[in-house]
Amino acid sequence: MELLTIPARRGLALKLDQGRSFAVVNTHGGQVVDFWAFAADDLTEHLSMRHTRNAHYRLAPRPGDRLVSNRRRTMLTMTADTSPGVHDTLIPCCDAARYAELGHPGHDNCADNMREALRTLGLEPPEPPAPFNLFMNIPVAADGALSAEAPVAGPGDEVLFRAETPLVAVFSACPHDIMPVNGPGGPTEAHIRLES
Amino acid sequence: MELLTIPARRGLALKLDQGRSFAVVNTHGGQVVDFWAFAADDLTEHLSMRHTRNAHYRLAPRPGDRLVSNRRRTMLTMTADTSPGVHDTLIPCCDAARYAELGHPGHDNCADNMREALRTLGLEPPEPPAPFNLFMNIPVAADGALSAEAPVAGPGDEVLFRAETPLVAVFSACPHDIMPVNGPGGPTEAHIRLES
Repeated sequence: MELLTIPARRGLALKLDQGRSFAVVNTHGGQVVDFWAFAADDLTEHLSMRHTRNAHYRLAPRPGDRLVSNRRRTMLTMTADTSPGVHDTLIPCCDAARYAELGHPGHDNCADNMREALRTLGLEPPEPPAPFNLFMNIPVAADGALSAEAPVAGPGDEVLFRAETPLVAVFSACPHDIMPVNGPGGPTEAHIRLES
Repeated sequence: MELLTIPARRGLALKLDQGRSFAVVNTHGGQVVDFWAFAADDLTEHLSMRHTRNAHYRLAPRPGDRLVSNRRRTMLTMTADTSPGVHDTLIPCCDAARYAELGHPGHDNCADNMREALRTLGLEPPEPPAPFNLFMNIPVAADGALSAEAPVAGPGDEVLFRAETPLVAVFSACPHDIMPVNGPGGPTEAHIRLES
């Protein structure tokens, strides 16, 4: 067992062998963690939210569901979820252009966190794919309207995954503090627990 | 005014000047049309469903809404919609891997249609971005379950757009005939009406 920190407002990238299990831990509660996964030998194959929605005909996967790539290959299994199970697959990662729109140019953002994290592994970052926004609370109204609400996940809630192929996994502790995307405690650190 | 045919089960690509208006016409009713748009001078910038959802906090755009790129730049405006307004932004285009999963290897598919259509313009096709699935009826239940239902759009229903930047637009008359994605009339042709 090894505990890795995703620093508040920052990213983390790591290589995962096939069969490796890991938990994404909402250490202090209320923190959104953007999650991407890439095939270790070819970053053009990546975890795809729209193909995963298509695989299960659900907005977001649940424990037991496989998560698939843009080539419909199984990348991960979600093996458990101790949180209330509220996660988002609809909204892109925040980026420099988004904060400029919101009147906060130069703000920390998940897209740059993803890029910097991949560079720590010596990898050239691609355009950010759609992230799996763990713990992000985007209710969908009956008429198709979306809203951004604070996460309902509490301190210590976690989602467990198993890598089903060799992966590069990237996480960003979302730095959003303009809309109520993260809880009232503001952006905090989160953790990755690697199972032995 | 010029009327172009998207042949049944096939694709169509065309270049559109900034300011050009066009209608996607559901000629016979019940037909899904997958729609992509790329910046004419850089195919790595493309219409993005997740960034468009983020721009309006809605599952799908409505008349008056701008449609934005993966760089959050306005690509198109949806200027009118004579259909009931049921369109999908959640499901990827069908592709060879999907039909293999469904037990129909070698089936016509929207991904290959997109590629072949771009090649008719001498362009090297990128990985298919998320399409705007016009007229596709994917109800979202309160618990996040999706379903695939026949379109509610009738014969002659159309969605009008204005190009807000020089574009390459690609359309595919979806050839899906395994699940009830298209209406009971089966995959049919559709049309693009270019306004003068």
